[in-house]
Amino acid sequence: MTIKAATAANTSVTTTQQWQRMDAQHHFHPFSNNADIRAEGSRIIERAEGCHLWDSDGKQYLDAFAGLWCVNLGYGRQELVQAASQQMQQLPYYNLFFKTTTTPVIELAHEIADIAPSHMNQVFFTGSGSEANDTVFRMVRRYWDIQNQPERKIIIGRKNGYHGSTVAGASLGGMPGMHKQGDLPIAGVEHVDQPYWYGEGGDLTPHEFGVRAARSLEEKIKALGSHKVAAFIAEPIQGAGGVIIPPDSYWPEIQRIVKKYGILLVVDEVICGFGRTGEWFGSQYYHLQPDLMPIAKGLSSGYLPIGGVVMADHFAETLAKGGDFNHGYTYSGHPVCAAVALENVRILKRERIVERVKDDIGPKFQQAIATLADHPLVGEVRGVGLLGAIELVKDRTTRLRYPDEGSTGTLCRDMALQDGLVLRATGDTMMMSPPLVINDQHLDELITKTKSALDKTWHRLKGK
Amino acid sequence: MTIKAATAANTSVTTTQQWQRMDAQHHFHPFSNNADIRAEGSRIIERAEGCHLWDSDGKQYLDAFAGLWCVNLGYGRQELVQAASQQMQQLPYYNLFFKTTTTPVIELAHEIADIAPSHMNQVFFTGSGSEANDTVFRMVRRYWDIQNQPERKIIIGRKNGYHGSTVAGASLGGMPGMHKQGDLPIAGVEHVDQPYWYGEGGDLTPHEFGVRAARSLEEKIKALGSHKVAAFIAEPIQGAGGVIIPPDSYWPEIQRIVKKYGILLVVDEVICGFGRTGEWFGSQYYHLQPDLMPIAKGLSSGYLPIGGVVMADHFAETLAKGGDFNHGYTYSGHPVCAAVALENVRILKRERIVERVKDDIGPKFQQAIATLADHPLVGEVRGVGLLGAIELVKDRTTRLRYPDEGSTGTLCRDMALQDGLVLRATGDTMMMSPPLVINDQHLDELITKTKSALDKTWHRLKGK
Repeated sequence: MTIKAATAANTSVTTTQQWQRMDAQHHFHPFSNNADIRAEGSRIIERAEGCHLWDSDGKQYLDAFAGLWCVNLGYGRQELVQAASQQMQQLPYYNLFFKTTTTPVIELAHEIADIAPSHMNQVFFTGSGSEANDTVFRMVRRYWDIQNQPERKIIIGRKNGYHGSTVAGASLGGMPGMHKQGDLPIAGVEHVDQPYWYGEGGDLTPHEFGVRAARSLEEKIKALGSHKVAAFIAEPIQGAGGVIIPPDSYWPEIQRIVKKYGILLVVDEVICGFGRTGEWFGSQYYHLQPDLMPIAKGLSSGYLPIGGVVMADHFAETLAKGGDFNHGYTYSGHPVCAAVALENVRILKRERIVERVKDDIGPKFQQAIATLADHPLVGEVRGVGLLGAIELVKDRTTRLRYPDEGSTGTLCRDMALQDGLVLRATGDTMMMSPPLVINDQHLDELITKTKSALDKTWHRLKGK
Repeated sequence: MTIKAATAANTSVTTTQQWQRMDAQHHFHPFSNNADIRAEGSRIIERAEGCHLWDSDGKQYLDAFAGLWCVNLGYGRQELVQAASQQMQQLPYYNLFFKTTTTPVIELAHEIADIAPSHMNQVFFTGSGSEANDTVFRMVRRYWDIQNQPERKIIIGRKNGYHGSTVAGASLGGMPGMHKQGDLPIAGVEHVDQPYWYGEGGDLTPHEFGVRAARSLEEKIKALGSHKVAAFIAEPIQGAGGVIIPPDSYWPEIQRIVKKYGILLVVDEVICGFGRTGEWFGSQYYHLQPDLMPIAKGLSSGYLPIGGVVMADHFAETLAKGGDFNHGYTYSGHPVCAAVALENVRILKRERIVERVKDDIGPKFQQAIATLADHPLVGEVRGVGLLGAIELVKDRTTRLRYPDEGSTGTLCRDMALQDGLVLRATGDTMMMSPPLVINDQHLDELITKTKSALDKTWHRLKGK
């Protein structure tokens, strides 16, 4: 501890190298190989405006990933700074326990009910999407206890799904890399197939494959005994798994199955919610009837941490009828975070940003990324609204990947960074999720730089 | 949804009744009986300054609970508003994945390392104490995997301990009311005795009882097989359990046991951290050698949600050596929350507030609450620093409680609220945890109002 914080207080006098050294000394990064970071030095993001970021060397990046699927309004919105500042002056914190509440929480709950599917009018607040999905686990079991069906305990998720990083959230998700660390999933969680046609569809048509993937849920329910199954949880479009857009046949079949067996449907809206698909929620895009919707990210455009679980009326009534629900967080509905989320939702409404994604910039984005499909490295381009994915392959006919799967995606990501573009890779799938305020000029920059990154990646791989 | 949010935007034109109705319609409260809240109407906290709150009817309260054990600096600190505002302008969000970092996170990690026990210099950030304790669960298992002792999986907590409300956090905690809802604890968690001398000490001296409570850990380790035990987790002083201050013999014996069997010691500093005991951390107050310290609450004085896990050097080195650690949160080290926490820690340092708790206001507080011990309703008064507890009993000689245990505490809490004082009750134990900036005048108000609440409670209960 030789560098004293006081000397580092002003970023203008601290060099990138000094920041990197302090970072290595004291900060253990999430979802990272910290030994590598310490050896290489981290990239220090210092400021942002609109859709662009700047690092501590002054280098500019187009953020085609909206932070981490969350900065829907883009950076630098003064109204959100104002909302935070005003609420923090007036009441920087109060809890929602012991029969108390605060006005930003009430107004935010009201606004969310206004945009949610019409049968969903109650919100339980959390501090994040992980806490929201963890809450789902506790709520669903409590619900069935109150319904006198305590034997309904199992929640079914999907392979390659993502529902946060708490022990229960990571269990509901289907990420092998997370399950391997710490003996997950915990008891009472099962997984079924994902509707990933490009990766797993084989010779089936998308329609056939969508039905088959959905039926894996029915088979699992039958194998477990339907009276033991509490709920099915899924993202409308899998995010971290690789922007996996289900075939049109998938969701209607899922909806039929959960209805038939009377199990709850939990639709994880952490990524799809708040306009990403061109509707307020992915549930509306796919005409779903969720019992619960975990939300976070776009709820506040990431400006402050807040999440929640939107509840169907019948579900909230049952839970209320059951008396005490012994669950909650200190920062459930933090007033400052709620005030920022409230202003965020009002801006999305006022500026008709969700409609813009649906009718204007969303279609333009899809058209633009579709032009990348001709690139020799690209096997498929797909997307909905302002979500996009590009599959990198060695042979587009056979869908053969390059050796050392995942390394091509990482290489392409690094090439993009060199060019000043932030993309994300999952395996060899490149993913895009830009701020919803992206404009035509940004879109040109995005396509030009992505093309350049694909070219550079392809040249590096030639002959491998 | 007949009340439109727009009409409710200005609190001055919205009546308490209107707020209550909207709250009931759309907001599902944490840790509550929501049916009761809907029937009675919630209390709307509207603004705060220093150590005082005001509700929507203009009624003033002294907040002797610092929000929820968190508003250590009191309400209305402009420097924290400034820190949030400035960072939110410059960079309202960025993630810490993919080898990136931000300057407030680096500086905050550095400051925490500076005040933590000297063998702890690395911080993993989360959004809350719940996420921090959940992270502990994942980290501890990962650690033993890397150490080639994957059979060490069991984490031992304590009955009546509290470690947050996620599935894993609630499992590590020992709250029966939480365990009953949703089949907790999950597999791999065990519980041992708490050092609650007043409630469970019987005829033993505090010293004898402290050793006995600690030895329940040794017995459990032996019964399970020490090679299967990964860690022991405990709060230095149990908070939610009832401000349970262990006898002096307890922690040295625990420290001996964890050392003897080579199991990790996790000290949950969510409540005790950042000055509450008169030291920076409870670990320093009790001279502990933790391997991990989950932190939150006082880290930011609750102004924005942030938590973390402080790691011993050997632990962080092992985890780094293991390569990818597949865990993290979107809001791990949120830059705005980190900037506020950074300024919060710097104010605590600059104004020597922790020293003040140790040498000045803490002793005054303890002396003041000790005067309540004479009250006929009071069985014991205890405290450390700015933590206090008052045991309410029918008969102080036999420690007999009033019938319907817990109702006396709730009654006393409600009487205090009537008088404009926020206390918290756990069972029939009244708890205090005022802002660290509480002054002599506040202290007088606190004691006068507490006395009045005790009187009123006692008169109501006479003859029962």
